[in-house]
Amino acid sequence: MINNAIMFSEYAKVYRDNLLNDVIPFWLNNSADDELGGYFTCLDTKGKVFDTDKFVWLQGRQVWTFAMLYNNVEQKQEWLDFALHGASFLLKHGRDTNGNWYFSLNRSGVPLTQPYNIFSDCFAAMAFAQLYKATQNELYKTIAIDTFNNILRKKDDPKRGYNKAFPGTRPLQGFSLPMILCNLVLEMEFLLDAKIVEKTINEGIEKVMDVFYQPDLGLILESVTPNGDFSDSFDGRLVNPGHSLEAMWFIMDLADRKKDNQLMKKAVDIAIDTLVYGWDEEFGGIFYFKDVKGHPPLQLEWDQKLWWVHIETLITLIKGYYHTNDERCLVWFKKVHDYTFAHFPDAENGEWFGYLNRQGEVLMQLKGGKWKGCFHIPRGLLQCSNVLQSLAEMQKNPILINA
Amino acid sequence: MINNAIMFSEYAKVYRDNLLNDVIPFWLNNSADDELGGYFTCLDTKGKVFDTDKFVWLQGRQVWTFAMLYNNVEQKQEWLDFALHGASFLLKHGRDTNGNWYFSLNRSGVPLTQPYNIFSDCFAAMAFAQLYKATQNELYKTIAIDTFNNILRKKDDPKRGYNKAFPGTRPLQGFSLPMILCNLVLEMEFLLDAKIVEKTINEGIEKVMDVFYQPDLGLILESVTPNGDFSDSFDGRLVNPGHSLEAMWFIMDLADRKKDNQLMKKAVDIAIDTLVYGWDEEFGGIFYFKDVKGHPPLQLEWDQKLWWVHIETLITLIKGYYHTNDERCLVWFKKVHDYTFAHFPDAENGEWFGYLNRQGEVLMQLKGGKWKGCFHIPRGLLQCSNVLQSLAEMQKNPILINA
Repeated sequence: MINNAIMFSEYAKVYRDNLLNDVIPFWLNNSADDELGGYFTCLDTKGKVFDTDKFVWLQGRQVWTFAMLYNNVEQKQEWLDFALHGASFLLKHGRDTNGNWYFSLNRSGVPLTQPYNIFSDCFAAMAFAQLYKATQNELYKTIAIDTFNNILRKKDDPKRGYNKAFPGTRPLQGFSLPMILCNLVLEMEFLLDAKIVEKTINEGIEKVMDVFYQPDLGLILESVTPNGDFSDSFDGRLVNPGHSLEAMWFIMDLADRKKDNQLMKKAVDIAIDTLVYGWDEEFGGIFYFKDVKGHPPLQLEWDQKLWWVHIETLITLIKGYYHTNDERCLVWFKKVHDYTFAHFPDAENGEWFGYLNRQGEVLMQLKGGKWKGCFHIPRGLLQCSNVLQSLAEMQKNPILINA
Repeated sequence: MINNAIMFSEYAKVYRDNLLNDVIPFWLNNSADDELGGYFTCLDTKGKVFDTDKFVWLQGRQVWTFAMLYNNVEQKQEWLDFALHGASFLLKHGRDTNGNWYFSLNRSGVPLTQPYNIFSDCFAAMAFAQLYKATQNELYKTIAIDTFNNILRKKDDPKRGYNKAFPGTRPLQGFSLPMILCNLVLEMEFLLDAKIVEKTINEGIEKVMDVFYQPDLGLILESVTPNGDFSDSFDGRLVNPGHSLEAMWFIMDLADRKKDNQLMKKAVDIAIDTLVYGWDEEFGGIFYFKDVKGHPPLQLEWDQKLWWVHIETLITLIKGYYHTNDERCLVWFKKVHDYTFAHFPDAENGEWFGYLNRQGEVLMQLKGGKWKGCFHIPRGLLQCSNVLQSLAEMQKNPILINA
């Protein structure tokens, strides 16, 4: 049964090699705008720029990635310089006069899209927090904290004037922001007041695990009523399995910090249930969207297989195994790993394809665009390789699993 | 070569049968909300309601369809009553206090989505104009004219406060509204001042054929700069072949009215060029979106095959042949007809599937939803069957074509 063995050290090497010898060089070599600053993210299969618009959240994510690599992997000057290159563009062009981060800029930094999207703020805060850790530059600290406080101020009405919903008819709360705050608060813990950290963590866990998680369904919904009830509407029926699975490793990190084994176990159970629900038994891979009542969802792209869904799921599974020894995590890790590494990485030109059709064929000839940048893959490769390495050190022998 | 023969009378019968014995009964039987008024449009494969939201533009389109059938096919009381059923719901709930039509309502008619979308207004205007023709009720006439004038007032800033674009950085004009005005003005001609009709027609033709049509590309773009120039951006590079093809029969109708043979011929040429460009040589069918420079478009659904694209193209091709005798139209008509009737109609449960994947398999198990209602298919089936019938009467023998 050696074929089914998870040789942790070998897997760790696969993830680390892909990160350091493929994905990171791809962005270093192809994405800098040396002339006008910031990063290009619209890169074709070979890494050639096909559009020059600059999406603020992707700029922030890439700054975060290189600062985080500098802080956590190796203090390479090249990585820090690359992060600073993006940060300087963001500082010059990223915000309006009220400190809200625009959604997108043109190549030279003139605003293209209004700051309607609070995720631009979230990733800017993460970016400048990591950069402060790397440089101790007080300016970055101030920007990170100010942006975080602005997020908390806006969080109950994140779209502000750009919300097209008629007020009051069908009020819904969305999963994305509470979920991301669970991660952001740990990212920024060293900069924040301890009380705010505790409050944000406890609220985040409650929202994710008690409000959006529906015990009768065994699933997390993307939108629920203000009371946390099910809304039988397109928005209310929507399940985004990748989102739920990503949230589970945010929760595992919080459970680990709190030494809360019950919370950890619950996160593993939800992850496995979501994976069983979201897995495409016919072609493999995890669906992008499903309607919880089995109706057709609004999203025409529902059956596609996306890069971030798969790498985030791998983080969740390996962390779940590390913390609980639950063998289901390992069985699924191997299954998702095999699908992912057979379909997404581009051995010829580097990096990963982002979008596959249901059958697993490449749907978009790109490595980056408006929604795919330098973030999920490097973050996931590093997290997985670190956890796999810890497992390898704990237990030298391969584990046989019934895959 | 009898297999390649277009027997116009037989084809006419196929379209008329599908309209009268399948599609129209499907909506009559399944879509009425007898309790709270208006129509359900979210119908599953068998016609069962799976969501009760009411999208104002689809309500308007369905009112238009049944009033139009009453006016143009047969004065069936059932059809008129069905149109009036939807109109009464729209009158009660459809507009804000300034006469703007909401985008969507909940089942009982309370607004769900603000009136950010000018197409709600366009289809309301069409609906009440047809209903006035059927009933001579002055109220409907007033609403149609008021709504038309409101559209003209809003047309240079159709999204009004809901536009997220930062003003001035990359101003673009969109193809949809000028295109639809080319059709709307003929629909409402009998209600409008002759000077406004002439002005709207001439402006519409100029916009579609001189501003959005790009002679160097041989294609129509969805967005161009205010001067009509190409914008090398995601929006500026976007081609929607179905949109361009639909617009060509609107232009043919105007060319016919103006007795402008040169305009007619140009519309046929653009239609054929667009079809050659948009046709999927591998799996058949017409792509939903393409990037004119061959880059990945933003739209993840770019390779899907949609019902409206195919039925609108059939109208264009048969009208093009009728007016010009251009044999390319007939060759393509047969090719698109064969693909369409092999893939979209559901012989078992009636009506057409709306969304196929690139391979031609059903992607969404629905007959109606947020974007598909009772409109394109009945309109297209009637237009095609009428033109085919005229061709059959003009020329009794089959025409052999080199398909």
